[in-house]
Amino acid sequence: MTQYSIPLEADRVQITDELFGSYLRNVAETIIPYQWDALNDRLPDMEKSHCIDNFRAAAGELACGHQGAIFQDTDLYKWLEAVAFCIQNGSGRQFEAMADEVIELIGRAQCEDGYLNTYITVECPENRWKNLAEGHELYGCGHLIEAAVAYYKATGKRNLLDIACRFADLVDQVFGPGAEQCHGYPGHQEVELALVKLYKVTGEKRYLDLAAYFIRQRGGKPNCLLEEMKGRGGRNVFPEFSEYDDKYAQTHLPPVEQTTAEGHAVRAVYMYSAMADLARETGDEDLRRACETLYQNIVEKRMYITGGIGSSGKLERFTADYDLPGDRMYCESCASVGLMMFAQRMVSLTGEAKYYDTVERALCNTVLAGISKEGNRYFYVNPLEVWPDNCLPSTSLSHVKPVRQPWFACACCPPNIARTLASLAPYIYAADDTFLYVNQPISSRVETRIGACTLRLEQTATYMQNGRITLKAESDGPVTLRVRVPGYMEQPLFTCNGQSVQPAMEKGYAVFEVSGTAEIRIEGRVAARFVAANRRVQALAGRVAVMKGPFVYCLEQTDNGENLPALSVLPAAAIEEQAPEMGLPGRLPTLRMSGRRLTATVADDTALYGAPAFAEEPVTLKAVPYALWCNRTPGEMQVWIRAQA
Amino acid sequence: MTQYSIPLEADRVQITDELFGSYLRNVAETIIPYQWDALNDRLPDMEKSHCIDNFRAAAGELACGHQGAIFQDTDLYKWLEAVAFCIQNGSGRQFEAMADEVIELIGRAQCEDGYLNTYITVECPENRWKNLAEGHELYGCGHLIEAAVAYYKATGKRNLLDIACRFADLVDQVFGPGAEQCHGYPGHQEVELALVKLYKVTGEKRYLDLAAYFIRQRGGKPNCLLEEMKGRGGRNVFPEFSEYDDKYAQTHLPPVEQTTAEGHAVRAVYMYSAMADLARETGDEDLRRACETLYQNIVEKRMYITGGIGSSGKLERFTADYDLPGDRMYCESCASVGLMMFAQRMVSLTGEAKYYDTVERALCNTVLAGISKEGNRYFYVNPLEVWPDNCLPSTSLSHVKPVRQPWFACACCPPNIARTLASLAPYIYAADDTFLYVNQPISSRVETRIGACTLRLEQTATYMQNGRITLKAESDGPVTLRVRVPGYMEQPLFTCNGQSVQPAMEKGYAVFEVSGTAEIRIEGRVAARFVAANRRVQALAGRVAVMKGPFVYCLEQTDNGENLPALSVLPAAAIEEQAPEMGLPGRLPTLRMSGRRLTATVADDTALYGAPAFAEEPVTLKAVPYALWCNRTPGEMQVWIRAQA
Repeated sequence: MTQYSIPLEADRVQITDELFGSYLRNVAETIIPYQWDALNDRLPDMEKSHCIDNFRAAAGELACGHQGAIFQDTDLYKWLEAVAFCIQNGSGRQFEAMADEVIELIGRAQCEDGYLNTYITVECPENRWKNLAEGHELYGCGHLIEAAVAYYKATGKRNLLDIACRFADLVDQVFGPGAEQCHGYPGHQEVELALVKLYKVTGEKRYLDLAAYFIRQRGGKPNCLLEEMKGRGGRNVFPEFSEYDDKYAQTHLPPVEQTTAEGHAVRAVYMYSAMADLARETGDEDLRRACETLYQNIVEKRMYITGGIGSSGKLERFTADYDLPGDRMYCESCASVGLMMFAQRMVSLTGEAKYYDTVERALCNTVLAGISKEGNRYFYVNPLEVWPDNCLPSTSLSHVKPVRQPWFACACCPPNIARTLASLAPYIYAADDTFLYVNQPISSRVETRIGACTLRLEQTATYMQNGRITLKAESDGPVTLRVRVPGYMEQPLFTCNGQSVQPAMEKGYAVFEVSGTAEIRIEGRVAARFVAANRRVQALAGRVAVMKGPFVYCLEQTDNGENLPALSVLPAAAIEEQAPEMGLPGRLPTLRMSGRRLTATVADDTALYGAPAFAEEPVTLKAVPYALWCNRTPGEMQVWIRAQA
Repeated sequence: MTQYSIPLEADRVQITDELFGSYLRNVAETIIPYQWDALNDRLPDMEKSHCIDNFRAAAGELACGHQGAIFQDTDLYKWLEAVAFCIQNGSGRQFEAMADEVIELIGRAQCEDGYLNTYITVECPENRWKNLAEGHELYGCGHLIEAAVAYYKATGKRNLLDIACRFADLVDQVFGPGAEQCHGYPGHQEVELALVKLYKVTGEKRYLDLAAYFIRQRGGKPNCLLEEMKGRGGRNVFPEFSEYDDKYAQTHLPPVEQTTAEGHAVRAVYMYSAMADLARETGDEDLRRACETLYQNIVEKRMYITGGIGSSGKLERFTADYDLPGDRMYCESCASVGLMMFAQRMVSLTGEAKYYDTVERALCNTVLAGISKEGNRYFYVNPLEVWPDNCLPSTSLSHVKPVRQPWFACACCPPNIARTLASLAPYIYAADDTFLYVNQPISSRVETRIGACTLRLEQTATYMQNGRITLKAESDGPVTLRVRVPGYMEQPLFTCNGQSVQPAMEKGYAVFEVSGTAEIRIEGRVAARFVAANRRVQALAGRVAVMKGPFVYCLEQTDNGENLPALSVLPAAAIEEQAPEMGLPGRLPTLRMSGRRLTATVADDTALYGAPAFAEEPVTLKAVPYALWCNRTPGEMQVWIRAQA
């Protein structure tokens, strides 16, 4: 297969962007040390992780039972993967000794035959592979592999990679079409995409075949996960699984036949990512078509404006076309990370730039919103409107937290955000023998080889301030740049070395041939703008959101007073751009809009209902980037604003 | 204790009201035969009840296990209670033989020692009283007692009453303060109020004492229900009980110390009803104060405009002050029945008319909405806004059904509505030695003794058509009427035999002395009106509802097109009253309002988000009574409408 648009490794790229640079610095300076303390239960006043202790217990070095979620191991794997990316991007060398030490521990916790899952090893070794629906053993294997591949690439050290290969070899032995083998597949997809990575780094085709086997097996009849659960007579690890159905883990149809995004959102996008990988590696056209159909269903019918997915808090899942409620949804940070992964793979599969719109949407809104500006507080669930008073254990909004949390009993999101931020480079640049692809307007420097040439490129992306993206290239021979020109840049003008040019457009990319030094500038209008939703989205009828560039903006109580639903906006009036908010990273402008506050209240303030007293006043609404919400005084927040004609 | 304002029995009252008469006729003509078929699993295409079969199995007459909910027995008890009320109100004599026969079956299903619960008897006789939190044994006992008391009052037959007494005696023996006794209390309150009824009809004070014991025991430390659940190690009958807490069944504090309505709404109001009964029967001032505080918390902070309660679909519970979302709430029909019961008891406790406002609100909105105009389709959950497309198993709105259902696996609501409609008389009239109380403006005839006099009274309530309530009284001596004048009647004028009078007001009642024949007329303006909610209700900011009299109105898709949230109303314009909708019972006017439809949609109809195209058009909104919604073409429905100044 022709392989094109291969995302660059982090060691080729240095990110200088003001906004992303700030988050990136946090990864090495704050997040990784903080999460290390969390994994070691050293942080006061928060839910204990028990993660490292579980590995000690599995290694026989600590006499205690397994504690925490049954998939707790993966928090360490994702932390290691983030460490690997930091080492690779040059910010994390100081963690290497710590990582090597904990990798030794992982090695000691691994069973003789390669099996590795601290919950099963400590609590019930006889139960290996008996609860595929809930057990997360293969999910853990996947995250182990991803960490191992990243650590190997970053350091050249094989220790963790060998651990991962031993486990993968065991999985390959246990699962497969053979008469003696288990014909099941993961209850939580992840290992499939990890196996493709392992194949790419080791060249061992059996890993690719195993990934393909898992995807092919899925959705067969009888449904092995449902049968397994029936066999347990409804005794589930997770109480909410009493509502489990065949769509939850995307087992309602063979993946290649699936046409709508269903079930648990993270499981779904991890699986679609693996499907795109397999389609790319094997040239399977049916699989490619399925990926395109599923992608389209998401972005045309089931995705929030923030790049969030999972419209239902119940079982964290996709629901139905155009069902996009802003208060009770899930929009898990991990799901948007997975959506970035899926969309990126669609580019490697098709070469089309458009998929990076979705990467950017998810990254610049939900993924950034998932973490505080300091890096040590996290959202798991990313609502589009919040009234803190009703996010209560007694309501169906108990999953929604009105402020970022220091950690979670099920802490998948914090390390997932960390590893994504630490590996931003591959989302910005890709390369193949012919082209350098500039996929995101994020200020950065890159050095890489394109064919026989060495290319140095410096990107300065100030489109949020002045509508400009500048690329200074320096190459020792002719190189072709493919630059994604974001759709939010209106009437872009192109210059090369000060001369106006009209570049060809290929697959959504503006194409520039450069040789020696060249300065390419793309400049256009990146205006703050109102956005509406498709008329079929009932929750958004008569509402608008406000965006600038890829950033969705929101109203916060601290700027606009309480009772945000009483506000409306006059979209006929101009949106005024004003100075960035002091203390928020990235110097993104704040926005002001003309609006009204309409209150209809009762005269007797102790009565619940009564004759209405109306008051309407003109107000100036102030909006800040959704990515940065809840970084000042906590309170209400709202993305979609009632429009007033 | 002085007992006053004792609700009249149904045999004293004949309801002639056009609206309620229509529903009432349904009870005997449709509902009772239909529900009998349901209990006997004779209805095609619906979830089987298994109720009668369970009794046969317990009686040893059918060799099969127990099926259906563990509290399935109560469906039969509530059906029997409805039959009893129909016999009492003169419409149900034809069911008596059927009832007698099934009562015999109940008797045969009863254990030697009086115990009666088909689930335990058939499945696990060794587990009696071992799962008070979930087992519903005492809840079943309560509904058995209520049916028995009603059937005894209606027919004078003691058979069912004796069965109930035998069970109550066993409960009295098992539970109590003695060293040998169980010190627990019901996981689902109901038996407490039933025991007070049993005491009243038998005069046996031990039943009253047992009710008081259960209320007194509740909320003690350690919490016996939580301890019991801990002992089961999280193995719950109901999967959702993984989120059980001490507020769920109102065990967080002794009831007398409770100040806010918490937990499962039906459990709560059944308990408050018993507390009010006990306060009345024993003169316990602390209990009375607790009842008043809890009542106030509900009506001032936690009750929907429709008289629905239970703001959370999750665990069907109360949540927090002013948390009143219209789409994901529970508002169970049974909870509003329980609220009617509680409010009515507050009148018997205090003599104050005001509590009947809440009875009327619940009855004229949620309780009537719970049943189709034909009587054979039911809402369990009563939303204030519905978008049928997102009431899906995969969403947190799966409990919301956009159309009434033929039956439910857990079918508490249909027979609860039936028994309430069949016993409407006691909600309309009450009496004591001194007064006849006219509590609801519902056309009807009543004959009763007040002190030494016999009074005949005919009420003609046409306030929804012409603002008029007429009372024709005929008595053989001086009698005092206390007539509740509803607050929605503006500037009421009073005449007696055509002469203008200015009656004294006592405890919210207009007082009229009558002797011989007298015609009292109350006439005022009962205008359609806009209603707002307290400013603290965030979900209702900038919204209004429209009411006329006690009836809340709503928009339906069939009248107003799809996408109701795009509509706004101009509350400055007049509300026009128009002819009743053909085919809906009660000849209640429909309402027309000036409004606007604002759509903000994207130009590319396949895109999910994009530049908005605004369209605003003036529209005439049409509203129908919420009580009658979904009796025509199903679709969207909405109570609270965005106001436009």
